[in-house]
Amino acid sequence: MVAKVQITQPISITPETQKKTFSFDRLSLQQGGVLGPITLAYETWGTLNATGTNAILITHALTGDAHAHDPARPYDPKAAWWNPLIGPGRPLDTDRYFIICSNVLGGCYGSTGAASIDPRTGRPYGMRFPVITIHDMVRAQRKLIDHLGVKRLELVIGGSIGGQQALCWSVLYPELISKTAVIAATGALTAQGIAFNEVARQAIMADPDWQCGDYAPGKGPTTGLSIARMLAMITYQSEASMEHRFGRNTLRREAVSSPTSHPDLGGRFDVENYLYYQGEALVRRFDANCYLYLSRAMDLFDISAGFPSLEAALRRISSKILFVGITSDFLFPAARVQALADAVRKLGGNAIYTELDSPCGHDAFLKEWQQMSAVITQLV
Amino acid sequence: MVAKVQITQPISITPETQKKTFSFDRLSLQQGGVLGPITLAYETWGTLNATGTNAILITHALTGDAHAHDPARPYDPKAAWWNPLIGPGRPLDTDRYFIICSNVLGGCYGSTGAASIDPRTGRPYGMRFPVITIHDMVRAQRKLIDHLGVKRLELVIGGSIGGQQALCWSVLYPELISKTAVIAATGALTAQGIAFNEVARQAIMADPDWQCGDYAPGKGPTTGLSIARMLAMITYQSEASMEHRFGRNTLRREAVSSPTSHPDLGGRFDVENYLYYQGEALVRRFDANCYLYLSRAMDLFDISAGFPSLEAALRRISSKILFVGITSDFLFPAARVQALADAVRKLGGNAIYTELDSPCGHDAFLKEWQQMSAVITQLV
Repeated sequence: MVAKVQITQPISITPETQKKTFSFDRLSLQQGGVLGPITLAYETWGTLNATGTNAILITHALTGDAHAHDPARPYDPKAAWWNPLIGPGRPLDTDRYFIICSNVLGGCYGSTGAASIDPRTGRPYGMRFPVITIHDMVRAQRKLIDHLGVKRLELVIGGSIGGQQALCWSVLYPELISKTAVIAATGALTAQGIAFNEVARQAIMADPDWQCGDYAPGKGPTTGLSIARMLAMITYQSEASMEHRFGRNTLRREAVSSPTSHPDLGGRFDVENYLYYQGEALVRRFDANCYLYLSRAMDLFDISAGFPSLEAALRRISSKILFVGITSDFLFPAARVQALADAVRKLGGNAIYTELDSPCGHDAFLKEWQQMSAVITQLV
Repeated sequence: MVAKVQITQPISITPETQKKTFSFDRLSLQQGGVLGPITLAYETWGTLNATGTNAILITHALTGDAHAHDPARPYDPKAAWWNPLIGPGRPLDTDRYFIICSNVLGGCYGSTGAASIDPRTGRPYGMRFPVITIHDMVRAQRKLIDHLGVKRLELVIGGSIGGQQALCWSVLYPELISKTAVIAATGALTAQGIAFNEVARQAIMADPDWQCGDYAPGKGPTTGLSIARMLAMITYQSEASMEHRFGRNTLRREAVSSPTSHPDLGGRFDVENYLYYQGEALVRRFDANCYLYLSRAMDLFDISAGFPSLEAALRRISSKILFVGITSDFLFPAARVQALADAVRKLGGNAIYTELDSPCGHDAFLKEWQQMSAVITQLV
């Protein structure tokens, strides 16, 4: 009855350009328990100097990967997710800096996550994977940094859950960082943000093909994950940008199958077709269980966790720290990003706040290249 | 694997207080085709005067019913959805006016909808029910008004898709209306609004128990409808109100089963438990197919449809018309409600705009009794 998207290749495949991995034995987790062995897939660009002090760490967003830059196709913004910002003479200058980006712990692009093989059973972890947090991701990245011989990070920078990671770095390892850039992220997600994520997770788990997480490769909950992505894509944009792009236009391009493949009810709006397309695109490239775990890490992140108070956590920040809000972001509202910058400054921190003036919503940090370039250039 | 909410009684039951029905043979539909016979369930309060000119029509929101007022429990705001606004000496004064509220065409509280028996087959319509629109609902209400002997409506008033209906009335039947109140509604839903509705519909249709709409009574897509409701409840509130009410609190009341009944991932936030509760509550009282049809009617509403232009449609309005925006509404943003009021005024219409100053989001018209009283009192 419901036509399923066929997943034509294993999802966890590492892109051609992303060959490097680093493994270590174990990590004690913030929520309890130990995970190991752990592999992190990563990429680097540029050269580390003799003192190990010219490194930049880029942290990626929910469904992102380590492939932030593609030196073979530097002028193609779609070849890598921050491609226009990275390279010789660019804001993140590979002539000056040794730039690192790793797939997060819990991801499905080469790092250990729910789709990885559990060595104890020889089968994918599935829902036996432990709950991981942003804190755990950062502590795993710390091991990678040490492995690479980095003594000091000139900059840690990222957006969305990448921004959560950057903030977490600045609090956990202040002695290692000169500058931090927290983009479209705050110290903790709002109730509304948690709510949207939970609707998405319920949609995934409601799909009979989810099988309590024990689906075979290529047989996952494609309908549920597609619906989850449709919802997430709304929260990454803004009312204004969707109105400008789609309005009430009826179908304007090739019709895509909806997640459930059921007939349209009184026609199809262009915005619906776009969301179906986005849902299907994610299903082809991402693992559903990893989506559950990473979106939960986003919910669970609270920069004050493990400290006596929020102030105690923020007081640890010693790097220059730039907070970047986005005017039309409703997932991490600009006012809340600014309030966090103010809080750090009031505690004596060297915090700056700036805003991307964009109708693009949360995703503006992946689209507004000129403004992003200006923001980064003012920092490095 | 997935524990289902048991629906303990037929959903289409008409509340005790709501006994009146009116039936007619057929209605030609805006999107084509003919539907019939049609029954509308309705309630009235107060007495129609001899000239038939003291009537007020109240139009309800998506999952609402005709039970806007409960004379037996006038001080219980939960006994009927606009209870505090209706009654002797209240803003909608039953001593002065003959007040009517009918369950919409397509609803499941006594009016003909997808859950009704198709006389051609002896089985529920299910997805064989035709696509209906706000326009069709209003034309059915017109027949009810005629049947009741109403010659002129002193006021048509409603919020959300009730506001869409009120606006539609003012354009379709200007000669019959003295005043109109369009609350938290515009001439057409935004792309973002359509997108949220479509995610909800996909979640319903993805539930195997939906059975292409041919589920047996008590065996419907409870998981899917519950997820749909969770999402809708986010859009009826605001970021600020959810933050104020739930923030990042962990579970604070009795744990409710989630739509999928799967274990929590790293604890449960209070906001999640609240949404599960709301999902389950709707499942117990509403039909999933009706939800598909009514939410689609919300999407499809375009006040300009059938007229040469939006201006041509709005120029027909001859009633005094009050538009009410809600400061924190993101489903029908206040700026868009105001823009519509401005457009009517520029075309020579007697349009007023006012705003509910509330953090409650879209649902403020069902909560802010004092402000709502003031708004209505200034009109009637």
